[in-house]
Amino acid sequence: MSEQTLPGTEVCGHRSGLFVAFEGGDGAGKSTQSGLLAAWLREQGVEVVQTREPGGTELGRALRELVLHGPDGSVSPRAEALIFAADRAHHVATVVRPALERGAVVLSDRYLDSSVAYQGAARQLGHDEVRALSLWAVMGLLPDLTVLLDVPAAEGRVRRGDVHDRLEREADTFHDRVRQGFLDLAQAEPDRYLVLDGTLPPAELATAVRERVASRLGVAR
Amino acid sequence: MSEQTLPGTEVCGHRSGLFVAFEGGDGAGKSTQSGLLAAWLREQGVEVVQTREPGGTELGRALRELVLHGPDGSVSPRAEALIFAADRAHHVATVVRPALERGAVVLSDRYLDSSVAYQGAARQLGHDEVRALSLWAVMGLLPDLTVLLDVPAAEGRVRRGDVHDRLEREADTFHDRVRQGFLDLAQAEPDRYLVLDGTLPPAELATAVRERVASRLGVAR
Repeated sequence: MSEQTLPGTEVCGHRSGLFVAFEGGDGAGKSTQSGLLAAWLREQGVEVVQTREPGGTELGRALRELVLHGPDGSVSPRAEALIFAADRAHHVATVVRPALERGAVVLSDRYLDSSVAYQGAARQLGHDEVRALSLWAVMGLLPDLTVLLDVPAAEGRVRRGDVHDRLEREADTFHDRVRQGFLDLAQAEPDRYLVLDGTLPPAELATAVRERVASRLGVAR
Repeated sequence: MSEQTLPGTEVCGHRSGLFVAFEGGDGAGKSTQSGLLAAWLREQGVEVVQTREPGGTELGRALRELVLHGPDGSVSPRAEALIFAADRAHHVATVVRPALERGAVVLSDRYLDSSVAYQGAARQLGHDEVRALSLWAVMGLLPDLTVLLDVPAAEGRVRRGDVHDRLEREADTFHDRVRQGFLDLAQAEPDRYLVLDGTLPPAELATAVRERVASRLGVAR
């Protein structure tokens, strides 16, 4: 399932908007930063679609519920990766791509790189395979910018507080592998990534994100 | 996502049982034939696991429910293919492979070729891609024997009676593409396939199936 041989990886459909993904472990502050950026963009008169994976659609919320609190107690690793890819396929087809095509800015709390970090690196299903799976699901759509909020696993645990679901309950070593997975992705594609120290104050992080997005949109910040 | 380049396609894990899949359109008589074969095998003292896709596990039943009667009304084609692959991954990991490893005969009402015929051929997502997806999901596990009960689309519609779900409601042209998809698969792998005219009397079909399975198992029929 290498990218080169996967017919579905050519980017399909014209797009004129901007696609920004927020990545990082649980408790890294992704939704806070996404919300701050959305508010600022709306002040600039930009149409913003603030969304998330998994669970950015009704079907996706049902899939997310199944994989995190599912009936069998445990979901086999490949089934988990496929369910997240299904959520992503539906999300992109019905929410992300239509918004980009009408020129909106789409902010997604998690996207494809989460699957690579969680299922590829941490679950050890293979970086290339999980990436190819997701690229097939979304017909090659990658974000214009991915903001990685980098937080040590132990710090993430403190921030999450009470644990909620099966993935959050994994040991720190699992979350360490997730973190390293994200850092490796950022290193491989430095132009697409903005890596920030997620332990900095939210306002400071928001300024850094705004700066990068403003330069992409060609608006004053 | 060609098979050659897909690391997950090597068959993983030792197996000593026999894996038989029943394929064909809705109303072709798959579960009838699976049941008749199971009863006969049990009379011979063989351990039989009679199962199905989608919905051979608790997780799979929830996934099947989502894709057939899902919340959004329509499921995007790639999401549909990925959900069926997820069902299959979990089914093989938790039911089929453990049974084969302990030497049982596994009879599955639908398997991988249904995805190729429905999502690959009829939904036109591409035979090779959908096959590679499913092979990744199941780590390369193919049936020892696939029984195709071939029935014309119009005959299938009469047999199904009242339509129940989103796939069954598709037009005859869709079911014609499904049928042709199965016939093409059978032609490509004649050794793995037993193609039967599904309009023949059930007892006659059961005899033909029994004959082939008996020769595989080395038991008298």
